[in-house]
Amino acid sequence: MPLDYDYLMSLPPIVTRHELTKRDTILYALGVGANDLRHVYEDGLEALPTLAVVIAYPGFFAKEPQYGISWQKLLHGEQSIILHRPLPSEGVFVGTTRIEEIYDKGADKGAIMLATREIRIEGDPEPIATARATSFLRGDGGFGQGGAGTPPAPHPVPDREPDLVLSSPTREDQAMLYRLSGDYNPLHIDPAVARAAGFERPILHGLCTYGIVGRALLDALCADEGARVRRMDVRFSSPVYPGETIETRIWREGDGRAAFRARVAERDIIVINNGRLDYQ
Amino acid sequence: MPLDYDYLMSLPPIVTRHELTKRDTILYALGVGANDLRHVYEDGLEALPTLAVVIAYPGFFAKEPQYGISWQKLLHGEQSIILHRPLPSEGVFVGTTRIEEIYDKGADKGAIMLATREIRIEGDPEPIATARATSFLRGDGGFGQGGAGTPPAPHPVPDREPDLVLSSPTREDQAMLYRLSGDYNPLHIDPAVARAAGFERPILHGLCTYGIVGRALLDALCADEGARVRRMDVRFSSPVYPGETIETRIWREGDGRAAFRARVAERDIIVINNGRLDYQ
Repeated sequence: MPLDYDYLMSLPPIVTRHELTKRDTILYALGVGANDLRHVYEDGLEALPTLAVVIAYPGFFAKEPQYGISWQKLLHGEQSIILHRPLPSEGVFVGTTRIEEIYDKGADKGAIMLATREIRIEGDPEPIATARATSFLRGDGGFGQGGAGTPPAPHPVPDREPDLVLSSPTREDQAMLYRLSGDYNPLHIDPAVARAAGFERPILHGLCTYGIVGRALLDALCADEGARVRRMDVRFSSPVYPGETIETRIWREGDGRAAFRARVAERDIIVINNGRLDYQ
Repeated sequence: MPLDYDYLMSLPPIVTRHELTKRDTILYALGVGANDLRHVYEDGLEALPTLAVVIAYPGFFAKEPQYGISWQKLLHGEQSIILHRPLPSEGVFVGTTRIEEIYDKGADKGAIMLATREIRIEGDPEPIATARATSFLRGDGGFGQGGAGTPPAPHPVPDREPDLVLSSPTREDQAMLYRLSGDYNPLHIDPAVARAAGFERPILHGLCTYGIVGRALLDALCADEGARVRRMDVRFSSPVYPGETIETRIWREGDGRAAFRARVAERDIIVINNGRLDYQ
């Protein structure tokens, strides 16, 4: 059944209330491999800026039948967060998630869905963060209306040697720990589900890779001060298997901007491309 | 100020209600180094029997000023759990914690406090588990009344070579993860607090070591079936530093009982002694 574009675009936003505790903030940090006190000790705790991806997350909503999405074929394509202000390490948040656009790439190619989540501290009208996720709906192209054109172009990575290269090991149980931050998709823990999806074993969450690369950027460019991060955009190009080493290559572009890319050292495969970090 | 024995013994029990989620059960398992699906995946999840030590845990109550305990000098001496029935992987529990006795060992030696927690599933009058903890109050001896005699004798370990030896590595951030199961004593994460307590760096929770040794026993003696464990008693003799390897030596004693001891391989120091496991 083809995707019902008009129906999807007319849906009301999903509103998600999230009571985030310091324990959650620490668990997220450990889930992306942090172990420095400022990110894992409640005394003086600072939230990692990438924590925004799990705050007021509405869950894997595309799996719900009313959307009519072939969710088994959905892949996380791109992720962006914009931090309007630094994140607190605890609090009550409200997320408002909307489908912004769906681009039809044709029946053989699929579709691209862009969803945006505005995150507010409860009681505060101004958003503290905006999270944008692009999903590649591999089984839902060819619906033939709306969403003409193409999604925003990704950030180019310079054609020269990187200025900085950081290496981040991951653990065999990295996904087991990361999933406790809210994404319980069995693809990341159940070998049978992973095989059915075409992977040799469970893969790391794209957003876990995102957080690990975010830590490397924070360390390399912001002296580990999360409040200096303004925006972080990535395109996911291939999954990481837990236990592999993620190498982050960074190009300084001046004026508080950097480009980056990440690869799995063991397999020499690019896992994140077209990265853009805005920082102060 | 000397300990007020009569006051402490007259205190009402601490009643603690605990809504345990599968997420908590998984987090505990990861905290003690488990990564097998039966203990870390919500689909078919089984609780580790040693989870009882964190269920309905009243917190580090000895730190509260009204107890008058020199909590900075408190060390966890012994721990016992008795499992009357297998633990579920989630549920609402009620713990009733009482100070059972305080033994005065003299002003120069300190005191020994025995506290017992009966754990029930809410609405069920029968306890599911009983946890007993002995604390060594190094700064509180010499109060000069009550608690004559000595605490129950520990379980002897045979004077022969062990029947089984298992090795369990720990991680540098093991205590950071374990503490999210409820024991936030800064001794286990804050270098300044650890130094003030006389340690070169933060030490692993005794109960984390307990859980790690419990996993080794479960694997060696119970084919990883938690429901077969009936009781596990230990005496803590020295702390483990995160990152060290814990070696568990097991002596089968027949009739569903085993003795055990654990040492840190790197320093050849015994960390758990007088261990007793009852199992089916």
